[in-house]
Amino acid sequence: MIVVMRSTARQADIQAVLERLGEHQLKGHLSQGEERTIIGVVGAAIPPTLREELELFEGVQEAVRITRPYKLVSREFHPLDTIVNVRGIEIGGSSCVVIAGPCAVENEDMIVASAQAVKAAGATMLRGGAFKPRSSPYSFRGHGEAALAMLATARDETGLPIVTEVMTPNDVELVARYADVLQIGARNMQNYQLLEEAGRSGTPVMLKRGLSATIEEWLLSAEYIVATGNPSVILCERGIRTFETATRNTMDLNAVALAKRRTHLPVIADPSHATGKWYLVPPLALASIAAGADGIIVEVHPDPDRAKSDGAQSLTFANFAAMMPQLNAVAAAVGRSVAIPAEAVA
Amino acid sequence: MIVVMRSTARQADIQAVLERLGEHQLKGHLSQGEERTIIGVVGAAIPPTLREELELFEGVQEAVRITRPYKLVSREFHPLDTIVNVRGIEIGGSSCVVIAGPCAVENEDMIVASAQAVKAAGATMLRGGAFKPRSSPYSFRGHGEAALAMLATARDETGLPIVTEVMTPNDVELVARYADVLQIGARNMQNYQLLEEAGRSGTPVMLKRGLSATIEEWLLSAEYIVATGNPSVILCERGIRTFETATRNTMDLNAVALAKRRTHLPVIADPSHATGKWYLVPPLALASIAAGADGIIVEVHPDPDRAKSDGAQSLTFANFAAMMPQLNAVAAAVGRSVAIPAEAVA
Amino acid sequence: MIVVMRSTARQADIQAVLERLGEHQLKGHLSQGEERTIIGVVGAAIPPTLREELELFEGVQEAVRITRPYKLVSREFHPLDTIVNVRGIEIGGSSCVVIAGPCAVENEDMIVASAQAVKAAGATMLRGGAFKPRSSPYSFRGHGEAALAMLATARDETGLPIVTEVMTPNDVELVARYADVLQIGARNMQNYQLLEEAGRSGTPVMLKRGLSATIEEWLLSAEYIVATGNPSVILCERGIRTFETATRNTMDLNAVALAKRRTHLPVIADPSHATGKWYLVPPLALASIAAGADGIIVEVHPDPDRAKSDGAQSLTFANFAAMMPQLNAVAAAVGRSVAIPAEAVA
Amino acid sequence: MIVVMRSTARQADIQAVLERLGEHQLKGHLSQGEERTIIGVVGAAIPPTLREELELFEGVQEAVRITRPYKLVSREFHPLDTIVNVRGIEIGGSSCVVIAGPCAVENEDMIVASAQAVKAAGATMLRGGAFKPRSSPYSFRGHGEAALAMLATARDETGLPIVTEVMTPNDVELVARYADVLQIGARNMQNYQLLEEAGRSGTPVMLKRGLSATIEEWLLSAEYIVATGNPSVILCERGIRTFETATRNTMDLNAVALAKRRTHLPVIADPSHATGKWYLVPPLALASIAAGADGIIVEVHPDPDRAKSDGAQSLTFANFAAMMPQLNAVAAAVGRSVAIPAEAVA
Repeated sequence: MIVVMRSTARQADIQAVLERLGEHQLKGHLSQGEERTIIGVVGAAIPPTLREELELFEGVQEAVRITRPYKLVSREFHPLDTIVNVRGIEIGGSSCVVIAGPCAVENEDMIVASAQAVKAAGATMLRGGAFKPRSSPYSFRGHGEAALAMLATARDETGLPIVTEVMTPNDVELVARYADVLQIGARNMQNYQLLEEAGRSGTPVMLKRGLSATIEEWLLSAEYIVATGNPSVILCERGIRTFETATRNTMDLNAVALAKRRTHLPVIADPSHATGKWYLVPPLALASIAAGADGIIVEVHPDPDRAKSDGAQSLTFANFAAMMPQLNAVAAAVGRSVAIPAEAVA
Repeated sequence: MIVVMRSTARQADIQAVLERLGEHQLKGHLSQGEERTIIGVVGAAIPPTLREELELFEGVQEAVRITRPYKLVSREFHPLDTIVNVRGIEIGGSSCVVIAGPCAVENEDMIVASAQAVKAAGATMLRGGAFKPRSSPYSFRGHGEAALAMLATARDETGLPIVTEVMTPNDVELVARYADVLQIGARNMQNYQLLEEAGRSGTPVMLKRGLSATIEEWLLSAEYIVATGNPSVILCERGIRTFETATRNTMDLNAVALAKRRTHLPVIADPSHATGKWYLVPPLALASIAAGADGIIVEVHPDPDRAKSDGAQSLTFANFAAMMPQLNAVAAAVGRSVAIPAEAVA
Repeated sequence: MIVVMRSTARQADIQAVLERLGEHQLKGHLSQGEERTIIGVVGAAIPPTLREELELFEGVQEAVRITRPYKLVSREFHPLDTIVNVRGIEIGGSSCVVIAGPCAVENEDMIVASAQAVKAAGATMLRGGAFKPRSSPYSFRGHGEAALAMLATARDETGLPIVTEVMTPNDVELVARYADVLQIGARNMQNYQLLEEAGRSGTPVMLKRGLSATIEEWLLSAEYIVATGNPSVILCERGIRTFETATRNTMDLNAVALAKRRTHLPVIADPSHATGKWYLVPPLALASIAAGADGIIVEVHPDPDRAKSDGAQSLTFANFAAMMPQLNAVAAAVGRSVAIPAEAVA
Repeated sequence: MIVVMRSTARQADIQAVLERLGEHQLKGHLSQGEERTIIGVVGAAIPPTLREELELFEGVQEAVRITRPYKLVSREFHPLDTIVNVRGIEIGGSSCVVIAGPCAVENEDMIVASAQAVKAAGATMLRGGAFKPRSSPYSFRGHGEAALAMLATARDETGLPIVTEVMTPNDVELVARYADVLQIGARNMQNYQLLEEAGRSGTPVMLKRGLSATIEEWLLSAEYIVATGNPSVILCERGIRTFETATRNTMDLNAVALAKRRTHLPVIADPSHATGKWYLVPPLALASIAAGADGIIVEVHPDPDRAKSDGAQSLTFANFAAMMPQLNAVAAAVGRSVAIPAEAVA
């Protein structure tokens, strides 16, 4: 941390800062310029609130933090890529993961049919919502445990591991009994009890970026999970909220590329929520892989115009199948692969 | 709802929309223009997903919702102001509420001293955090139930009702045993289980606006609480996240004035979090009252430069006391009052 | 400026930074911590691009600027408030200015009638657009020089000084021949040729904040004008673009209060553009004055529902007259005044 | 347009709306629902201000525009892709354009060397700033006409057409004498006189999206140019301003894919400004092509760490050359090509 004194600061002001640093077992190195003095703060453990504290001192213009506030998830502390293994599927390695399925599990037939269709087209995991967060109390909120059982059936039929959302700490044990990956949604990115409870389950966690979360906040939330002793966290960019309303959200692929540099954790992308329009999903899915994402998660529905939620952003089986060979071509262009069964690319 | 057909839509496309409406027990009224056809949708209950559904139909350009999605909190359904009564203090009436106290309850002495100081200066309620949401897992997270007991002591000493945050559904019963008002923080505005659990407690709830929540989403979250049968909801604007980084957040006083028109619930403002700088708190507190807020909530700390959190935005006792007469003057200018004890204005 | 080296930086990396500083006639003061080295940069003139330059050096983690990039408009260099004098009306002093009038000058009768009405209600200056920036090439763009002449007639009739927008460097001489204050609109806040040409005219300039301009960029644009030798600049907050669409823009009163601390220039507020809804104009006008603005500029139209532009945000004469006594009361509450003729408050 | 009446509207309110429509030679079609009445507005030319006008009427809840406000640039009116031809290079066809070069032309040697290097690596056009918009009046603003002459020399040496920015209407004639494409920068996207003057020059125009411009506003600005009779407009996404500060801007590739659907004009992407970090340029350049962009424009500098501007986001010659084969591979994956000379891919 650097403390920048005002040009009008007196010697006593500088002394007061140095004393406070001493109280925290920190040292201050003075750099006296012609216009002002700057104090470099050194020591093992800088308290998170020190910046705020010092900015209240007489004569202090600003205090600037110079190290990142997360540790366990940082690439500085762990340079090699983390690979999350889900029933033999590696996320974060050379192969890109494709997670597909409906927004919500509506009944057993539709989830099994969806699983079979996306598997045939080359998906490697199945998504489907049992508990759905909805802005309005009057919207459909999912079939709960019954839907979890249907997901398990679909897994039995196809072998695809399942990803599904958990919304509250009390449900973690229940959802983890069925799910291969616990999804934490954008609205819950800073629901800290949920992060810790999910972490303690030991199940891999997919952490979506909050609607207006900075990359740093997103990584700090991941730090909450990893700090429980669970290293299997997959980050998921799903669009941020900006002034633009022509699309549901603004997909931030800068964040995918930058997160890959800052953290060793795998980063995937969700073009369905990031665009909100099914016809924008294929171009943005390709763009995600080109930008370096470790995979995508997309909504696919047997009959999007009758979907109970998010129909507008869901691909049909046919559209999903048409996208997969292109995805494979783009992955190959950046030196990666997507596992696609022979029948799909024929 | 209005369904706008494309200029290229065929008669069969229109027919398909009408049939789908029929399946939902809705009727479509055609308005055939020279360029295109528009279908007005009428009927008692329009499903929340209908817009998405219809936008997938061949020949449909867009579907536009024309009624607001919330009901119980809407001023259309309940034109008169709701007044929330907290131990005899009315929030939402002619008098403005002033809630003051430290960000976090650090120990009994400091919370009791804070309560006495803010009461002497004219505050009508006490705030103080027992459970603190923090972006980093390494920051101070509050003293929990011990802090709740200290708040109760401060209430006993001063008579000030207490407002404190609850972060997870499991804690609602505990926090409600102590608190007069349950605060739901910005990060939890869409933590639906928490909203419902807080609602079911019957205790008044102060609902902060999410960092990037629209006014409509904020009111929908309030609807979750009121729908449990608990009408005592106080909305709190606390700044939104924008591109501007010179202040911690951007205080949205448009939202205060607009929310007062759209809902009958009381709306207060939090200039401490909305600005992040103690020296901006007084001008924005005055501005909030001038814009029509039903009160303010501000952070006051006996020694802000040693606060365990949010020191930079906390007022000293002296600064708080200096602000109160101005606040009273502005309230009077807009035909309202702030209860200030005689000794404070002397 | 502070240069933060990486923990992995070698001695040669540090040396390279010091040498580059020397090339710029700057000195670097080393602060060697346990984890990393920090270099404080001192010297008279730090080139604006130095930060970018240094961040490309091997071993440099980041370079942090620690002084503000503007000088002439900064309160550090000029602590006393600047008062802009417009035909005897002082802007930035103890009295708040009220500038009112229609969005566009539609014809002579309407502008004269508007001038008389707003004067009777207490306005101290007249606004009216002769040249209108419009997003669409198919919208009404103003009557140009003919409208300038009508404004001059309205000034002759009422004595109110006039404020009107200039959109392009070539028009500055023409508009300055009529106007008492040149308005530079939000879209042109970074039209640097226009800023300089307006500055060189010697006429006072009202500089609106750009739709997504930071406070720092706004002050830098003011610096362009003042650097031409024209000290008479009035800043105007008119709302920023955020994710919220329920109002036309988000009024940023934090920015008004903060700009008043950072610069000695007067700062006024435009609640008409900041809200986009006439019924939100009075509460936000009051809030602006309470937050410390030196005045307001509002749209008033004889018949808003037939206005050629911005009717939705224009006050009627009656609504404007009703607002003025409240404005005066709030100004008095914060120790200021608004000049209101006796007949208006009677 | 659709006019939604309130549930409390009276027959006279509806009548008043119909009469006003009649004054504009428009007709209103009533759709009487159980709760409220909706009026569909039909007729040839709906005035741009009609929406605002009607929203002021008694009994009107809202008026909703249902056709897009631009025409000439719309794909509805012109379904086939426009291909802009610049000295034989086609922009908007099957081949992707690669425009590369330094931010600013610093001297003749560096621009000629840059042109040769980017051409050898496969670039098809040369960029370089002669007039530079800068936030601070104290930053380097370009060498003006001398730089234009240096660009022309670089074109003579390499055959690469040149793209350079014009900042003010007065300079259009001068810049068009040298440039093959006139660039209009983000800050000037709504500088309407400049748009029209550039349009009238007949030279192709590259129009960058404003920092906080919606896609609709961007297309409306393009409409200004095309309305002068100049059909050769190239749109350029260069990042928008959001809350995220870890990158200079947020690249909006949703906008690239959506703009390609809404308009027939070519759309290219600028990953240098959109990210602000040279190491994010290659992944985002690849992502742009994968998302459907018709090309990219990137900053390349012989010695980025001594660049007079934007060094942090400039590629070295070597980094640019390393990116090009990858770009070609991604283009091929989406069925397009980038012209790369044999020596570059060898």
